[in-house]
Amino acid sequence: MKDIRNIAVIGGGSWATAIVKMLSENLDTIGWYMRSVYAIEHIKRNKHNPSYLSSAELHPEQLDLSDDINAIVEKYDVLIFAIPSAFLSVELEKLTIPLHDKIVFSAIKGIIPESGLIVGEHFHKHHDVAFENIGVITGPCHAEEVAMERLSYLTLACQDEKKAKELSKSIAGRYIRTKISDDIIGTEYAAMLKNIYAIAAGIAHGLGYGDNFQSVLMSNAIREMKRFIKKVHKMKRNINNSAYLGDLLVTGYSVFSRNRMFGNMIGKGYTVKSAMFEMSMVAEGYYATKSAYAIKSENGAKTPIIDAVYNVLYDKKEAKDEFKKLTNRLD
Amino acid sequence: MKDIRNIAVIGGGSWATAIVKMLSENLDTIGWYMRSVYAIEHIKRNKHNPSYLSSAELHPEQLDLSDDINAIVEKYDVLIFAIPSAFLSVELEKLTIPLHDKIVFSAIKGIIPESGLIVGEHFHKHHDVAFENIGVITGPCHAEEVAMERLSYLTLACQDEKKAKELSKSIAGRYIRTKISDDIIGTEYAAMLKNIYAIAAGIAHGLGYGDNFQSVLMSNAIREMKRFIKKVHKMKRNINNSAYLGDLLVTGYSVFSRNRMFGNMIGKGYTVKSAMFEMSMVAEGYYATKSAYAIKSENGAKTPIIDAVYNVLYDKKEAKDEFKKLTNRLD
Repeated sequence: MKDIRNIAVIGGGSWATAIVKMLSENLDTIGWYMRSVYAIEHIKRNKHNPSYLSSAELHPEQLDLSDDINAIVEKYDVLIFAIPSAFLSVELEKLTIPLHDKIVFSAIKGIIPESGLIVGEHFHKHHDVAFENIGVITGPCHAEEVAMERLSYLTLACQDEKKAKELSKSIAGRYIRTKISDDIIGTEYAAMLKNIYAIAAGIAHGLGYGDNFQSVLMSNAIREMKRFIKKVHKMKRNINNSAYLGDLLVTGYSVFSRNRMFGNMIGKGYTVKSAMFEMSMVAEGYYATKSAYAIKSENGAKTPIIDAVYNVLYDKKEAKDEFKKLTNRLD
Repeated sequence: MKDIRNIAVIGGGSWATAIVKMLSENLDTIGWYMRSVYAIEHIKRNKHNPSYLSSAELHPEQLDLSDDINAIVEKYDVLIFAIPSAFLSVELEKLTIPLHDKIVFSAIKGIIPESGLIVGEHFHKHHDVAFENIGVITGPCHAEEVAMERLSYLTLACQDEKKAKELSKSIAGRYIRTKISDDIIGTEYAAMLKNIYAIAAGIAHGLGYGDNFQSVLMSNAIREMKRFIKKVHKMKRNINNSAYLGDLLVTGYSVFSRNRMFGNMIGKGYTVKSAMFEMSMVAEGYYATKSAYAIKSENGAKTPIIDAVYNVLYDKKEAKDEFKKLTNRLD
C-alpha cells in the first residue's frame, strides 16, 4: 500500500528547495536527495541551501537528506523529481531500485534531450511507471517567491486525479494554493513551450521591440500553444487556466527568467554559443525548441514563434531577419 | 459620398497625438481639434505637442489644427475621438453640427460616466450615428511607443468591416500593423475592463503580492473578461486575440499605467480620495469599475476581480481583506 504522505524530493536546485519548503509546512519527514555532500552538510549545519534559494529557512530535523539516490528512492513511495531535464538521464542511470511501484511527480520543466520525450512519457517508457502513477507539478511559480512566502498557485496534474488531490494536501498551505487537473500531457507541454516563448520574448527585447510588441507576442504565443497541445493530445482544456497562460506569463514577463535572458543576449547580437558560454549554463528552452520543432513538423501545427526561434538557434538565421518575418505572421 | 481618407482627430492628449502621427505617415492633411490654443500655437511653431507625447515630431504643414470643434467636425467625414471618456460629454455639448452622417471611430478607452454607456452606444443613442458608421480603434498600444516608432498592432473594429479596412490604410505603416474585426462591442468592453484589471494588479502589488500572483490574476482576468463580454454580447470571438488579451497584458503589466498606479497607491494604504488627489487625475478604471459592477449585477456574470475592486473603491472595504477573500475565488 503506497502512502501518499511518504514523500521524497529528488534534486538540489531552487525549485527542489522551494518544494521541500512547502512540504515542510505539512509533513514531519521529507526525503531529500541531492548530489552534493557539501550542500547536505551545509543545510544540516546552517539551515539553508548554500547555492540555491538560500534565503529559504530549512528545518534539518524534518529532512532525511542523502546523496545516495537509491537510499532515498527505496524508502519513499512518492518521488517528486525537480532536476533540470538535461541532468535527469544521468541521475536515473544511477538507479538500482525500480520505479514501477512508485508514484512519480515531475516538477521538471522541459524535455529530456536524449529521448526527446516530455518527462511523464520518459518515466512511462523507460521506467515502466504506469500513467495513473505519473503526475506533474506546475506553476506559475518562481521559486524565489516561495522563499519569500508570497502567495503562489500550483497545479497538480495526474490522470488519476485522486492522487493529485491527496498529494496537494501535503503541498497546499498558508502561501500555496493548489489546483487539480487530469491533463498531465497538456500541462507538461505548456511548461516546456513557455520556455521557448520566453526565449522569443528575450530575443524581441534584445532587438529593441517594446511592450506593445511583447503583449502581441504573448497573445499569439498562447494561441500557438493551444494549437500545438491540441495536436499532441486533444482534450477539453481551458488554455487560459493558470497552468498554461499563467505559467506562460510568469516566465515571459520575468526579467529573471534564464530563458528570456538567453534570448535577450541573442537579440543583442551574441551567437548562440557565446550566449551559452556567458550564462555558463544551457537554458531549458534551447532543447525544448528542437523537440517542439520536430513535433510540430510531424503533426503540422502552425507555430510561427517556435519556427522563428528554431531558425535562429539551430539554423544560424539572423535574429533580426527572422523576427522581421515573424512580425508578419503575428496579429 | 463620404471620403474615408478625409479624417480628423478629436482630442489633444497622448493617444490623440499618437494617432495623428500614424495618420501623418499616410495622409497629406489631417484635421485636428484640441481645446488649447496655446498647444496649437506651440505645435505650429515647435513641431511637437507641448504637454503630451512631446517626443513625437509633428509636421504642421499636414495639420489642419483648430480649437473650434464645429469647424473641424464640419469639414471631415471621419472623426476619430481620442479624449478621456470623462470629458467626452462636455466636448460633445459644444457641437452644433450633427454627427449622423459622419463615420465615428472611438479611440476612447472607457465608459461615459454620465450615461454609463460604452462610447459606441453613446454615439448611437445620443448622436444618431448608425452602428454601421461606428468603429473602435484599440490596442495593445502605449502611445509612448508609437512616438518611438516601435512596432505596434492595432485592431480596427466596425460592424461594417469594409470601413475598418479602408480606414486601416491610413493608419497602418512602417511601425503600425492593423487587424480588422467586426466586434465593436466586445473590443470596447475589453478596453474598458482591462483598466479595472490594471487597478487590481496595482492593488495586489501595493499589498505585496508578487509576480506569481500577478500571473494568476491575469489568467483569471482574461477568463472573467470572456464571461463578462459573452453576457453582454454573445458572438464568436477569440478572447486571446491581441485586442482582448494583448490589451489586457500591455496595461496590466505596465508600471506606467495610470490605472495600475492608482491601484498601487490604494494597495499601499492611500484612501481612494487621497490617491486621486495625489495623481491629480482620475484613472479611467475608476468609472469603469462602477459601470462594470452595475452591468454584471444585472446580467449575473461571475466577476470576482471586478467585485473586489468595486468593494474597495466604492464600498469602503479594506483592500487587504477584499484581496484575501479574492485569493480564494481565483485558481
